[in-house]
Amino acid sequence: MTLNAVLSQIDDTLPEALDRLMALLRIPSISTDPAYKPDCARAADWLVDDLRSLGFDASSRPTPGHPMVVGHGGTGGRHLLFYGHYDVQPVDPLALWDRDPFDPAIEDTPKGRVIRARGASDDKGQLMTFLEACRAWKAIHGTLPGRLTIFLEGEEESGSPSLIPFMQENAVELHADLALICDTGLFDSKTPAIVTMLRGLVGEEITIKAASRDLHSGMYGGAAANPIRVLTRILANMHDGDGRIAVPKFYNGVTELPDAIRAQWQNLAFDHARFLGDVGLSHPAGEVDRTPLEMIWSRPTAEVNGIWGGYTGDGFKTVLPAEAHAKVSFRLVGTQDPIAIRDHFRAWVTAQLPPDCTVEFKSHGADRASVMEITDPAFEATRAALSEEWGTSAAYVGAGGSIPIAGHFKTYLGMDAMLVGFAHDDDQIHSPNEKYNVESFHKGIRSWARILDRLM
Amino acid sequence: MTLNAVLSQIDDTLPEALDRLMALLRIPSISTDPAYKPDCARAADWLVDDLRSLGFDASSRPTPGHPMVVGHGGTGGRHLLFYGHYDVQPVDPLALWDRDPFDPAIEDTPKGRVIRARGASDDKGQLMTFLEACRAWKAIHGTLPGRLTIFLEGEEESGSPSLIPFMQENAVELHADLALICDTGLFDSKTPAIVTMLRGLVGEEITIKAASRDLHSGMYGGAAANPIRVLTRILANMHDGDGRIAVPKFYNGVTELPDAIRAQWQNLAFDHARFLGDVGLSHPAGEVDRTPLEMIWSRPTAEVNGIWGGYTGDGFKTVLPAEAHAKVSFRLVGTQDPIAIRDHFRAWVTAQLPPDCTVEFKSHGADRASVMEITDPAFEATRAALSEEWGTSAAYVGAGGSIPIAGHFKTYLGMDAMLVGFAHDDDQIHSPNEKYNVESFHKGIRSWARILDRLM
Repeated sequence: MTLNAVLSQIDDTLPEALDRLMALLRIPSISTDPAYKPDCARAADWLVDDLRSLGFDASSRPTPGHPMVVGHGGTGGRHLLFYGHYDVQPVDPLALWDRDPFDPAIEDTPKGRVIRARGASDDKGQLMTFLEACRAWKAIHGTLPGRLTIFLEGEEESGSPSLIPFMQENAVELHADLALICDTGLFDSKTPAIVTMLRGLVGEEITIKAASRDLHSGMYGGAAANPIRVLTRILANMHDGDGRIAVPKFYNGVTELPDAIRAQWQNLAFDHARFLGDVGLSHPAGEVDRTPLEMIWSRPTAEVNGIWGGYTGDGFKTVLPAEAHAKVSFRLVGTQDPIAIRDHFRAWVTAQLPPDCTVEFKSHGADRASVMEITDPAFEATRAALSEEWGTSAAYVGAGGSIPIAGHFKTYLGMDAMLVGFAHDDDQIHSPNEKYNVESFHKGIRSWARILDRLM
Repeated sequence: MTLNAVLSQIDDTLPEALDRLMALLRIPSISTDPAYKPDCARAADWLVDDLRSLGFDASSRPTPGHPMVVGHGGTGGRHLLFYGHYDVQPVDPLALWDRDPFDPAIEDTPKGRVIRARGASDDKGQLMTFLEACRAWKAIHGTLPGRLTIFLEGEEESGSPSLIPFMQENAVELHADLALICDTGLFDSKTPAIVTMLRGLVGEEITIKAASRDLHSGMYGGAAANPIRVLTRILANMHDGDGRIAVPKFYNGVTELPDAIRAQWQNLAFDHARFLGDVGLSHPAGEVDRTPLEMIWSRPTAEVNGIWGGYTGDGFKTVLPAEAHAKVSFRLVGTQDPIAIRDHFRAWVTAQLPPDCTVEFKSHGADRASVMEITDPAFEATRAALSEEWGTSAAYVGAGGSIPIAGHFKTYLGMDAMLVGFAHDDDQIHSPNEKYNVESFHKGIRSWARILDRLM
């Protein structure tokens, strides 16, 4: 009965919950751009104040980068840690946004009401579902639902450089029985999901250098090495004709799906045509013998996420640039070793350099894939709570995006993690016009209330 | 004797001539960037004032782009037209300049005194050599050296969109017996040159599009087409393993050098190692069976002058961009047809598109190569004047950079053109820290005085 009272409280106070989320979304906490450092600190402080209002003993904890927010509260029962991140992606290209990314609004769309702003879905809207569930619980019960630690990061979108040192320095304080992570999505608009497989990520930045300075292509064109030409040739070699990655030893540690999981995924009736059609595509671009679901959940990838060199402004400049650059990322699965892959990739690039060219590499992170142990009864309890709220059987799924925090909880704190989230595939996270469905926010809060009721 | 008086006058007034050049260099007349439109107009007005002070009937003539400067003066004898351009290249990357590109200074360097500024060599310093020769001539003789038309353009660095219409509309006014163009270089630091072969230029901008919006590489990576990957694969195919250009029919109209010219070029004892060594290179990057001199004077090229797509800022963003872009240029020789090459290139790119990808093209000019007729005795007279001033036999040479104006004089005004210039290979035109040797400026002025003395 008290669960129903909590759920009613959530329904009745949704407008105020949305107002709080909008206030957090107005803070442009872009972690990758140093210009927004004060805004990241402001977002952390805002969350500390909110946690304190819920009775948490919370503080903003300095790091060499952006602060961590840590709060402890409640007593008794199972000790749960909740993780989310308050930093957001950059907003470029700004011209493609229909509104200021940091002036959030509720919009009516053909698919329902949405909260439009950078970070609405990734991850401010999602992390607030948990805090709002705690708030409603406290309004009804007078206490938090149990012993909780809240751990909110501000560097998730920029490679989390401070995360592991902070975990190591505060391992005793941060240890709990289980970590809950809210940074993933629904399986589809009606089906909630618990992610049990997460791809790892290796990020590399390449700079190819040739002449000692930019050259005029009229004077030197044809005779002087062009680093853009060298770079395009190397990147073009990264995949073979069948879409497989050509870096030697790249597939070491990649395992085939167990038949049982493969069967479960086939039962999900994933709509491949719609998945691609939603973004204007129709042909899977990966390995020729794999389904799109395998491509995004259980197969490794190599992608060029950025490339630049020479003259890129209006008009034309007949320059042979001295340098060309690319940002390349690899998604990892199974037991692929990120450090080995980084080394193999660097050796493979270097071996392809023509005379007069050099290469410099810069690392942007190297994280293994994670595979969760679902033997903990908390997984089945959560699946039941989610199925109840959404009226559809919740699914154990894979996820293409790396959320290395899950692996870090295991490695550095000895904790298992459970990933539950309410984002939609069309939330446009990392893109212009990011949004979070009001339904995701509302039912997300209700879902956590049900989960906490079962786990505590 | 009066020639000697003019040469002495040039020597005596060099400081004032340098001051005038510095004033012109302070005007940031970057034609390709609309932000500098008022500065281009200001540079044109400055030149009109200077021409009027020399007795020219001069004016700044509006066009849809930047103004043309036209001046008429002097009487009698052969009617010569002098062409130069007052616009300059963009300055990026600005961080690589050792000083403000528009705050010119005379610097002492191990190779002598230089004028350091954007446009010092290309082309403000060069065009002022001619005006200063006229000024010294007038100081001694009281008149200009003969019947002269001065024609200065402000769009040379941005594809000259207004040039042909302006020539066509003012064909009678602009017609003269011969055009003199000062926008080229010395053969080497001691050897003056007259350029008789100029490569043409086709500029193309490609945009490859895939998904309808930027995607998160975690969610779509592996399954969705990546336009950067498509672009790099197409650009990598542009050259075969021997450095030849793989676009079909590209070599139509490319002729082998006549044996006589090949022999003359061999006699020039071009220092291939030093040409590349000056810019930190050692290996010719073009067709395997050609010398560097052929690569830059008589062979066509394909180069990527700019490339961009995805996230290019600090840090890392795991985006699959919706678009990727490149600026590609082709240098043409012989009778290669620029319009046909543009069409063949576009068809070749389009044929390589995978499913779900589209391409858009934007033209940035299409000009044929020029080959001068040196039977006009003015060529030999000029060669004698240059040889006298520099103390070394002047050479007829090719030039890698396209100066389409020479072809336009022939096509639209029925005039032959003679290209004489005093730039050095290490002037860093189109690059940071552009400079013009004070010796080039000084001996350039003296060279024109000698040439005018012989031609008028």
